[in-house]
Amino acid sequence: MGIAEVAAIAKKAAIQLATVKTGEKNAALTAIANTLRQRCDHITAVNEVDMEAAKKSHLPEPLLKRLNFNEAKIEDVCAGVETLAELPDPVGRTISATELDVGLKLYKVSCPIGVIGVIFESRPDALIQISTLCLKTGNAVLLKGGSEAEKTNNILSKIISEISEKSELPPGWLQLLQTRQDVAEMLALDEYIDLIIPRGSNDFVRSIMNNTNIPVLGHADGICHVYVDGEADLEMATKITLDSKCQYVAVCNAAETLLVDEKIAEQFLPKIKDELDKGNVELRGCKKTADVIKVEPAGKKDWSTEYLDYILSIKVVEGIDEAIEHINKFGSGHTDAIVTSNKQKAAKFMTRVDSGNVFVNCSTRFSDGYRYGLGAEVGISTNKIHARGPVGMEGLTIYKWKLVGSGHIVADYSGPGAKLFAHKKLT
Amino acid sequence: MGIAEVAAIAKKAAIQLATVKTGEKNAALTAIANTLRQRCDHITAVNEVDMEAAKKSHLPEPLLKRLNFNEAKIEDVCAGVETLAELPDPVGRTISATELDVGLKLYKVSCPIGVIGVIFESRPDALIQISTLCLKTGNAVLLKGGSEAEKTNNILSKIISEISEKSELPPGWLQLLQTRQDVAEMLALDEYIDLIIPRGSNDFVRSIMNNTNIPVLGHADGICHVYVDGEADLEMATKITLDSKCQYVAVCNAAETLLVDEKIAEQFLPKIKDELDKGNVELRGCKKTADVIKVEPAGKKDWSTEYLDYILSIKVVEGIDEAIEHINKFGSGHTDAIVTSNKQKAAKFMTRVDSGNVFVNCSTRFSDGYRYGLGAEVGISTNKIHARGPVGMEGLTIYKWKLVGSGHIVADYSGPGAKLFAHKKLT
Repeated sequence: MGIAEVAAIAKKAAIQLATVKTGEKNAALTAIANTLRQRCDHITAVNEVDMEAAKKSHLPEPLLKRLNFNEAKIEDVCAGVETLAELPDPVGRTISATELDVGLKLYKVSCPIGVIGVIFESRPDALIQISTLCLKTGNAVLLKGGSEAEKTNNILSKIISEISEKSELPPGWLQLLQTRQDVAEMLALDEYIDLIIPRGSNDFVRSIMNNTNIPVLGHADGICHVYVDGEADLEMATKITLDSKCQYVAVCNAAETLLVDEKIAEQFLPKIKDELDKGNVELRGCKKTADVIKVEPAGKKDWSTEYLDYILSIKVVEGIDEAIEHINKFGSGHTDAIVTSNKQKAAKFMTRVDSGNVFVNCSTRFSDGYRYGLGAEVGISTNKIHARGPVGMEGLTIYKWKLVGSGHIVADYSGPGAKLFAHKKLT
Repeated sequence: MGIAEVAAIAKKAAIQLATVKTGEKNAALTAIANTLRQRCDHITAVNEVDMEAAKKSHLPEPLLKRLNFNEAKIEDVCAGVETLAELPDPVGRTISATELDVGLKLYKVSCPIGVIGVIFESRPDALIQISTLCLKTGNAVLLKGGSEAEKTNNILSKIISEISEKSELPPGWLQLLQTRQDVAEMLALDEYIDLIIPRGSNDFVRSIMNNTNIPVLGHADGICHVYVDGEADLEMATKITLDSKCQYVAVCNAAETLLVDEKIAEQFLPKIKDELDKGNVELRGCKKTADVIKVEPAGKKDWSTEYLDYILSIKVVEGIDEAIEHINKFGSGHTDAIVTSNKQKAAKFMTRVDSGNVFVNCSTRFSDGYRYGLGAEVGISTNKIHARGPVGMEGLTIYKWKLVGSGHIVADYSGPGAKLFAHKKLT
């Protein structure tokens, strides 16, 4: 079956899935969790095969960790699915209701987006999270996971499809793509697919964005900043800088650039260097930084580089305005934090920094759907429309306008003697 | 000045405009309305020059009507701007607030999108409506109006810029593009421009969509349907069909295809033909339609054609399922109506028809921001993300996540002895 055919089936399934009742969706979610637990031994055995092959091809240790799908991880993901089943249905919610005139009522009602294409890294738990999130939000989904997890993904999607059949969910609402060529074909199918969510390296995401007319939700870069203001508690600033940079360097919400107010540069820079040296973080600094501490020189390229590694670029700035300007120029609109005890400056930073996540006196690493309490996350968006920051259930829904009349026509509301609209808010 | 420079200035202005206080924005809006009224004679005189030139180049009558900007229209648009000034500020609204842990609070706050490029038809009132809507929502805007309205647009944007200067709004938040080449250059500036809203012919909008990486909000086609169900009140169905088709044929929410349940075809078709004949509507029908009334034969192309004229295609269907399938296949996701007295069928139609606006027992012509009570409208969207149907203030805003802590770091919430998140809803 070609990908266009797969997508056409998904589109048809999406229309039906939009009408599946809350209880039926939640029962299917619970059944998925139960079955995954029951078949835990089988799943871990299949995952072992993927793991062996990955080890043989020398997949780096952090990636092996992500690929590994053991009993504890299966239990975690099942608990997540059960929590999802308990959350209110995001579909069919009346967002607003207005009486336009007697007997003519307008409802703005949440609904699924339709068909979503998700390309994700070699992490089997992501397959479960994404597909159950799509089921809960009533979206059909075409999934392409990292090739290292192929066998694990196949068994997991097979289990979900079996449950779906038993639960009488519309056939083909979830389908697994197998090759990169499949993905390339999917990107051309704007007739059937409403949204693409790519996860992975910057270059990969950017290439997806540049090669499709379908809206793309996600982020290429995560160039996050910590700005230590002249009125910062320097103990706090040290703690937050360390956590933002080192708590997990390989992720999009880790800090890449430290901006330091010149007023406290001489005091703060030696202090933070001591701590970063302990963590073996390579420091690259501007000229003013180099006047205070020993660093490699930072070039323009450093300000726009996502290291994803134990490297930090440092720039001394004249104050909050230069910090904001630097972030809006070189940042990626992902997550940026200020450390300050001045509330006015904090408010200014949060309003003027044009990023999805703007933080005061806490680590950039908090930028995450789980930490935000969104229930689950399909990705983090640096888009300026639809959904920004961590994207959970809400980002997978949209709305439609339902207008219910009793023979109303527009001619009665135009020209001489036109009736007037009431526009009475009902909710 | 090149368009990239214009856009860079707009981007800078957008950052500042996001922080302008509600009272200042509203005062500027009021000043704009007052000044337009005061300078009414001047504006109408300039518009006369555009009108004369348009008449000489034989612009069709309906377009001349739109181009005309007389005292009554100026008064209308000023009243609209004053209403807008009175509406609550859509920016800075706390959508949700969650306490993640003691002293760590997450706020989801509405904010402007940034810089919006709007290309619109030769209708001077549109310039005022769009620019004031952008001001209210805190967005910078690059405008390109139809060339026939060039002189009128220049004087109007000059007036708004003068008020903006007096009101100390950030310079360059509104700028007028002059040529098609300017528009082509704008489409490449995804670094500065966050959203494009094109209004105009199908081909024009489609060409914009195909030639930019910037998100586009709008609609190419408006292929709207009326489905007359077997359980419809046929008097009502006649009234609604006539209004949907004839009340104003040249607009996107006019009906192009009538779907008729075979159960009432023999009864309904002669009746509706009588009425449509009076309006000189050309009828094109499927074979089953031709068995009942005299029509031109309709081909597959008819089902996907937006006539924008006194032409209606008619198809007899087996019932609601075929109607829904036809609409989802050939429609454009704009506006579709069912006429039925059966509430279950009405609900099914509204859930399964995958359009931004789904109507029961009323005319498709109601699909409009003014009629919906949105205050104002920048366009109608057939997108599946961000904003759907008529787009008012809400579609011009997005949100950012603001997280305020007091030294919180992620390391404390991970590993052995990890602190737990509270995720306590505050609103």
